[in-house]
Amino acid sequence: MTMSFAKIAIIGLGLQGGSIGLAVQQYLPKIATSGYDRDPATRARAAERGLVGHVAETAVEAVQDADLVIFCVPLGAMGDAARECAPGLRPDAVISDVGSSKEAVAKVLGEVLPNHVIIPAHPVAGTENSGPDAGFASLFEGRWCIITPAEGTDPFEIERLSVLWQAIGARVEIMAPAHHDRVLAVTSHLPHLIAYTIVGTAGDLEEVTQNEVIKYSAGGFRDFTRIAASDPTMWRDVFLYNRDAVLHMLQVFTEDLTELQKAIRLGDGEKLFDHFTRTRAIRRSIIEQGQDVASANFGRDGKV
Amino acid sequence: MTMSFAKIAIIGLGLQGGSIGLAVQQYLPKIATSGYDRDPATRARAAERGLVGHVAETAVEAVQDADLVIFCVPLGAMGDAARECAPGLRPDAVISDVGSSKEAVAKVLGEVLPNHVIIPAHPVAGTENSGPDAGFASLFEGRWCIITPAEGTDPFEIERLSVLWQAIGARVEIMAPAHHDRVLAVTSHLPHLIAYTIVGTAGDLEEVTQNEVIKYSAGGFRDFTRIAASDPTMWRDVFLYNRDAVLHMLQVFTEDLTELQKAIRLGDGEKLFDHFTRTRAIRRSIIEQGQDVASANFGRDGKV
Repeated sequence: MTMSFAKIAIIGLGLQGGSIGLAVQQYLPKIATSGYDRDPATRARAAERGLVGHVAETAVEAVQDADLVIFCVPLGAMGDAARECAPGLRPDAVISDVGSSKEAVAKVLGEVLPNHVIIPAHPVAGTENSGPDAGFASLFEGRWCIITPAEGTDPFEIERLSVLWQAIGARVEIMAPAHHDRVLAVTSHLPHLIAYTIVGTAGDLEEVTQNEVIKYSAGGFRDFTRIAASDPTMWRDVFLYNRDAVLHMLQVFTEDLTELQKAIRLGDGEKLFDHFTRTRAIRRSIIEQGQDVASANFGRDGKV
Repeated sequence: MTMSFAKIAIIGLGLQGGSIGLAVQQYLPKIATSGYDRDPATRARAAERGLVGHVAETAVEAVQDADLVIFCVPLGAMGDAARECAPGLRPDAVISDVGSSKEAVAKVLGEVLPNHVIIPAHPVAGTENSGPDAGFASLFEGRWCIITPAEGTDPFEIERLSVLWQAIGARVEIMAPAHHDRVLAVTSHLPHLIAYTIVGTAGDLEEVTQNEVIKYSAGGFRDFTRIAASDPTMWRDVFLYNRDAVLHMLQVFTEDLTELQKAIRLGDGEKLFDHFTRTRAIRRSIIEQGQDVASANFGRDGKV
């Protein structure tokens, strides 16, 4: 039994699927890649860009002979995608995915494909773009991929998947699915919810026009619009499928916001200053650990 | 009477003051510049970097012969800074500033310097960095500077100040101070408050460690940490001096967040999808109007 996979099938050819396809072709050229997307326009564009070695016309054709199948579709589409592939799967094909909520994914894939080794995974990497033009080979460079195997999963298969992610640039962490869902609720899902909310709030005001919001967005607002431009289908599903963890984090956030609101109302400058000082340290650590760059304004000012 | 100023004094040599000094020296070399900062270390560094033509040892010395004085200090320090300069001011010196809350600034400067022409201004430009090393000449390039003169202000002086800001790269808009404060409450102050809150929330959780938050910040969280690394003194003052407008916008935001929370709780995918689709359009407009760049991830992924 070899450590490497022979053929990887990618189901869903958007930002994540396309990036995996391009990265595998670049870093692991001996592995065959095939892909499928239920949208014909996406399939056509994926073929043009060469996101995978072969763009199949059906899911069954895509997974033929594959020893690893990675589902790169929104959480709500995982079940259907797995059902569509099932008739063509090799019995020993390992099943994985890139979804943002791991308990939900493990459950639905386990129901549809009960006889397969299923190892859910989540690369914590992305941009605000989506679709077949969004992917690029270096997306996972230096980012973390969290693998959330069920208890009792064959360690060899976990290792095989880890090696694959490392080969395309990611760092790998193994985590329990429930813990993953709480971590991501705070580092990804809550930020997106807040960003979507404030961008909506700003767009709907009566006393300030939308044009004014846009003109003066460089004061801070524009930072929120980047992630509020992310794929609506994917994010709808994240909030539906990781509901409990998101609602919990939202509750904590709301309590903290209420506290700062009270400090503003009472004119408690000391409390505000203390809070604003603490948050600087977290930024510094993120830059030190290579998860963001220090260039002021992310290079938006011509200084970098 | 000439359209140009002969000598500009800059009080406060941080990100804004330093950038104005560098920009004036670069684009308007005929105008003399002097500057003062109450922190000796900042003065020393400002002299090293040449942020202004002459770094004075006192505020009175800095404003000597200046026909324009720009206060670039936190809102809470404006009154003291103006008092310190008062004995040295030319009677015809125009007074301006760069503060984020215009009604409060007009009030305090008017009280301290009742016999001067005061024209508050606010360049909507910045980075997360502060201090004498943060400034750079192109900070205002393509950004808006909002000028908020009181009714009855001499149009010639307003024009003179506008021409100056345009010469150093900014686009100028004239606005009533109260409206400015509402616009900035939503495009700048609320985003900073939210960012400071969520970064604090994430840092304080019991069930997710701070190290996990940092490691997996690329999922969206890191976007908030940039503005939550802004200068704590400046931002404390913004919330103290623009309190009413901020509390109002916060109220609207909280209502909207509660609505999305309810949609998540009830599993109302349609409502979530509709909301997430609308917010994309605002992002697009911001990029079209040159207030942000479209490069995915702000060039953080090596693709740009």
